[in-house]
Amino acid sequence: MVPSASKLQSRPSPFAEFSVRLIPRIDGALSRHFDRKISASDGLRRDIFLDLKEYCTREGKRIRPLLLLLAFSEYRRAGGAMSGALGAAAALELMHSFLLIQDDIIDRSDLRRGEKTLHVIAGEKYGAYSHNPGIGSDVALIMADILMAGALELVHSANFTPPVKSRFLKIFTETYERTAYGQVLDILYSRPRRVCDLTVPGEIGIEKTAYYTMVYPLMMGYVLSGGTAKKEMERIRDFALPLGLAFQTRDDILGVYGGKKKTGKPSDSDLVEGKFTFLVAHTLKNLDHTRRRDFMLLFSAPEKSAADLAFLRGLMDGTGAHEKARERLEELTAISRSRMAKLSISRRGLALLEGLVEMTGEE
Amino acid sequence: MVPSASKLQSRPSPFAEFSVRLIPRIDGALSRHFDRKISASDGLRRDIFLDLKEYCTREGKRIRPLLLLLAFSEYRRAGGAMSGALGAAAALELMHSFLLIQDDIIDRSDLRRGEKTLHVIAGEKYGAYSHNPGIGSDVALIMADILMAGALELVHSANFTPPVKSRFLKIFTETYERTAYGQVLDILYSRPRRVCDLTVPGEIGIEKTAYYTMVYPLMMGYVLSGGTAKKEMERIRDFALPLGLAFQTRDDILGVYGGKKKTGKPSDSDLVEGKFTFLVAHTLKNLDHTRRRDFMLLFSAPEKSAADLAFLRGLMDGTGAHEKARERLEELTAISRSRMAKLSISRRGLALLEGLVEMTGEE
Repeated sequence: MVPSASKLQSRPSPFAEFSVRLIPRIDGALSRHFDRKISASDGLRRDIFLDLKEYCTREGKRIRPLLLLLAFSEYRRAGGAMSGALGAAAALELMHSFLLIQDDIIDRSDLRRGEKTLHVIAGEKYGAYSHNPGIGSDVALIMADILMAGALELVHSANFTPPVKSRFLKIFTETYERTAYGQVLDILYSRPRRVCDLTVPGEIGIEKTAYYTMVYPLMMGYVLSGGTAKKEMERIRDFALPLGLAFQTRDDILGVYGGKKKTGKPSDSDLVEGKFTFLVAHTLKNLDHTRRRDFMLLFSAPEKSAADLAFLRGLMDGTGAHEKARERLEELTAISRSRMAKLSISRRGLALLEGLVEMTGEE
Repeated sequence: MVPSASKLQSRPSPFAEFSVRLIPRIDGALSRHFDRKISASDGLRRDIFLDLKEYCTREGKRIRPLLLLLAFSEYRRAGGAMSGALGAAAALELMHSFLLIQDDIIDRSDLRRGEKTLHVIAGEKYGAYSHNPGIGSDVALIMADILMAGALELVHSANFTPPVKSRFLKIFTETYERTAYGQVLDILYSRPRRVCDLTVPGEIGIEKTAYYTMVYPLMMGYVLSGGTAKKEMERIRDFALPLGLAFQTRDDILGVYGGKKKTGKPSDSDLVEGKFTFLVAHTLKNLDHTRRRDFMLLFSAPEKSAADLAFLRGLMDGTGAHEKARERLEELTAISRSRMAKLSISRRGLALLEGLVEMTGEE
C-alpha cells in the first residue's frame, strides 16, 4: 500500500492532534464519574468501582467518544457547552466497556488492551470467596451491568435540554440494540459448523461495527449540538457506513496478521477464536472442495496449535485473502472520502475526518 | 401460622383483585412492544424477538410493575394518563427479565417460571450453528441486552413531561445499579468457602431484593404521578424496606421448603445452589463446631444427592431455622403494617397495600 500523506509529511494528522487533545478530557470525565462513585462507597462496593475505573481508563483509541465530540464541535452553532458533550462521550465509552466485558466473557479471552480481562481480574480477586469455578465471569458480568447503569446516570445528568437529551437517548438505545444483534450474529458464526452464506461477515461488519463505531457516535454528536435535520443524518450515515466497514476490514486483517502490540490481544486471535470474517469468507470462496473441508475442520476446532494456525494462514494466503482485504479497505475508504464533502461542516472538520479516513485505511 | 383474614373470608384481597385486573394490561403493554419489534424485523432478528416475547410474557406475579401502577394510581392528582405508566411498568418488567436471564446463566438453572430458561432455549435453537458448547449462554446473554435496550426505548417513548421522565430515569438507574451490587454479593456468597459475617444475607436481602422489588417500584410510580416530596419518598421507603425483606425471607423459606409448583423452580433450589440465605445464617449460628463443618462441606459442594439435601435440611430443622424464618417474616410484615398508615394515600390504597402485606406474610 502507498504510504499515506501524513506519514510522508512525518507530522501528525489533524485527527491525531484532535485525539491527543481530547482523550485526556474524555478520560477526565470517566475518572470524575468513577471518583464520585468511589468516594461515596466503601468495602466491596468501593473495590468494584476501583477495578472498573482501572479497566475503563486503560489506554485506548477512544474512537467512539472522539467521533461524538468531533461531530458535536463541528455542528454546534451558538457554542453549546463542551462539558455536557464530554459526559455523553463518557457514557458512550462506558457502554463500550460494558460490551467489551461481555465480549471477553463470551470469547474466554484473557487479554484486553494489553492487560487482564475483567473476568480474569474478578476470578483472581474473588476466587477465595466461593467454590464456584466460574465466579470470575459471573462477577464480571454483573460489574458490566454497573457500568451500563453508570452510562445512563451520565446521560441523565448531562447538561442538555430535555428534547436534545431525548433524541440522544433514542440513538443511544438504537446503538445498544443494533450492536447486540450484530454480536448475536458474531457468536452464531464463530467456530461455525457450516457456512452457507458468505455475506454474513458483511452483515456482522455493518451491525456490530459500522453503525456502532462510526455512524451512531457521529449522529450522537450531531443531535447533542441541537441538530435535527434528517437529511444531514443521512449524509452522516452515507459517509460513516463504508468507513465503519473499512474499520472492520482493518480489524479483520489485524486479527490474522497483526501482532499483540497493535491489537492488545494475542496475534492470530480471530483464527484462534474461529471468527467468520471477510478474510475467511474470501478464503472459503476460493478453496477447492477438499481444502475447504480441511480449512473448516481446523478453523472450527476449539484448540489450535501453532502449526494449525500456520496451516490456516497458509491456505488464506494462497487465496490472496490479505490482498483482497487491503483492496476492500482502499475501496471503502475511497467511498467515504467521496461522500465526505457533502457534510455541512467546516474545512477544519473535513480535515479531521480526512485524518480519520487515513488512519482507518492504514494497516 | 394463623390463616390470613383473606383466606378465612374466602374472597380475594383487594390486591389480588388489583392484580387480576392490571396484569393483562401490563402484559398487553409488553406484547405491544414485542409485536412492534417482530413486525419490523425478519429472519434471525424476528426469531430473537419471538423468543423474547414468549419469555417475558410467561405467567408471573408481575409484582414490580403492579407496585409501580399501584403507587401511580394512588398518588396521581389530576388523573395522569395510565398508558404512560403502563409503558414504564413494562420497562421495569423488561429490566427484570434482563436480570433473570443473567441470573439463570450464573446459576446454570434450567427452569424459570416452570419452563426452560432462555439459555437452554438458545442452546437448543442455535447449537447447530457453532461448535461452541456455551453458545446457549452466550446468545442468551446478548438477548438480555436487547431487552434492556427495549426497556430504555419504552422509558424514552413514555408519555410524561421531561422533568418527570428524568426523575423516573434516575430511580430506574439506581435500581439497576443497586440490584447489580446485591447480585455480586449473592454470587460471592453462593457455595461459599467460609462465612464469617452472618449479617451478609440481610445485606443481600436489602440490596438485591427489598429495594428492587418493593421500594423502587413504589417510588417510580410516585414520581410518575408527579410526586416530588422527599418526605413521602422516605415514608415509602420506611414502609417498603421491611416488606421487601419479608419478601426475601418468604423466598428463602420457599427455596428450601417450597415445591416446584410455588416457585417455578425445582424445590430445594437454594440448597442445591448453595445460597447463603437467612435460614443458612441461622443454622450456622446454632450448630456446634463439628456439625457446622459438616454442613458447610456439603452445602458448598457442586453436586448434591437427595440424601445430601435431606441431611442438610435435617440440620437446618434441628436449629429451628424454619420457625425462626417464619417469626422474622411475621415481625417484618408487622413493621410494614405499622408504617403503612403514614402514607398519603386513599383508604382504597391502604386496603391494596394491606393485601400485599398479607400476601407477603403468607407462606
